[in-house]
Amino acid sequence: MANWKLTLAYDGTNFHGWQVQPGLETVQGHLQSAIQRICGENPLPQGSGRTDAGVHALAQVASFSLTAPLPASNLQRALNRTLPAAIRVLSAVPMPDDFHARHSATAKTYEYRIFRGDLCSPFLAPYAHACRWPLDLDLLHQAAHDVVGEHDFVSLAASDSDLVTRAALQDDSEPRSTIRTIFSSSWTSQPGDILIYRVRGNGFLHHMVRNLVGTMLEIARGQSPPGSMPTILQASSRSAAGPTAPARGLFLHSVEYANFPD
Amino acid sequence: MANWKLTLAYDGTNFHGWQVQPGLETVQGHLQSAIQRICGENPLPQGSGRTDAGVHALAQVASFSLTAPLPASNLQRALNRTLPAAIRVLSAVPMPDDFHARHSATAKTYEYRIFRGDLCSPFLAPYAHACRWPLDLDLLHQAAHDVVGEHDFVSLAASDSDLVTRAALQDDSEPRSTIRTIFSSSWTSQPGDILIYRVRGNGFLHHMVRNLVGTMLEIARGQSPPGSMPTILQASSRSAAGPTAPARGLFLHSVEYANFPD
Repeated sequence: MANWKLTLAYDGTNFHGWQVQPGLETVQGHLQSAIQRICGENPLPQGSGRTDAGVHALAQVASFSLTAPLPASNLQRALNRTLPAAIRVLSAVPMPDDFHARHSATAKTYEYRIFRGDLCSPFLAPYAHACRWPLDLDLLHQAAHDVVGEHDFVSLAASDSDLVTRAALQDDSEPRSTIRTIFSSSWTSQPGDILIYRVRGNGFLHHMVRNLVGTMLEIARGQSPPGSMPTILQASSRSAAGPTAPARGLFLHSVEYANFPD
Repeated sequence: MANWKLTLAYDGTNFHGWQVQPGLETVQGHLQSAIQRICGENPLPQGSGRTDAGVHALAQVASFSLTAPLPASNLQRALNRTLPAAIRVLSAVPMPDDFHARHSATAKTYEYRIFRGDLCSPFLAPYAHACRWPLDLDLLHQAAHDVVGEHDFVSLAASDSDLVTRAALQDDSEPRSTIRTIFSSSWTSQPGDILIYRVRGNGFLHHMVRNLVGTMLEIARGQSPPGSMPTILQASSRSAAGPTAPARGLFLHSVEYANFPD
């Protein structure tokens, strides 16, 4: 029995998210089929968390066990030959038995990309939210700073009405608290009229990064009062926060496992 | 009556090429529908040439006439609001009556992108041909140089067996000769294991750039004799040349109109 860790990049544009759904193309579904074709075994690969339809990954992590002994480089190559080009296995590494992509994760980093120009290139459109409103960058930086630390993020979690097909409130399923710690949260400007938000934390509720971005944009546009992020967090109510930013701008950037070797 | 010139960028991945086809999503079809929705008029926009399914454009040109008087910036904005995000109107300019996107073109430039690395990112895969064979770059440069000048390119035109749905041999429909002049033709290396072929000429036969690339790669891989491009051209036979390189690596880069102001 070998316990495997895969690191995966995917373009989420044409997938119905990570999680297996009957009759729909999902990343987990493609991965499970590819493993079965290669090894004849049918484990359900566990992701570090679900990503929604249209959300991308630069380095998602999945884990699963196989009884067949396989060299790691063969597994990676065979998976990349079998998977669609929109999903790539960046690495396949055997891990100790107690490694689990979700339970063992100690930090995750997400990026959100915004295009600020007049005309969004067709080659950028699936990977950025085009937002042409005038934005006060000082207010944007302040709002990002205001979420650093330990907070109850229930105001920024998907409310039931946001959840069409699932009942769970969070993408990491335990513990069932809405308290999370954000280690860093900041916006940077990039060439080509791009703004990138990067946030690193010990876990994220469902829709939390997209709701954070939607809320910060409302503040920076003047639709919410300047400096209102602490009040929004304290309200403990989804209705206090801004709208959910579109999925296409969101990238799962990386997942950390402090208690396991890289 | 106003004669319009549109410059368009599109991601060809999810379109069945440029040309209108019943029941299929094409760039010309989307553009025609958008014009009709905006103006109530139904001209068929003429492209500088057709692009095949999966081929991209950085600056395709289309022309058409409208009786409705419209400010150019309004037309551009209205089209971009109506078209899918995978098609963008970069500019809309009124032109003299005798301007025609295809007939008036004096030069066209195409680019072809090749990825040489081990693992092609899912975000690059729709825009490059992943080719991991060892390539002799000197042979590649020589083959590119060998096509510069006036030649009969019938060896590099789509043969009938390549043409599933169309009878025409060329993308520019007149004159019906297979002689073309290539002004420049060269490969450059780019960061990230990318090779880019750029070719500028007075016109291109159907599949000509993709057949050129496929043939040059065969020479650089040692599948065709070193320096065999002149012999292949002289053979005047499609079977003398190499395979058609995949559509996804091809970009229509720009179209020139020397007899009209920019």
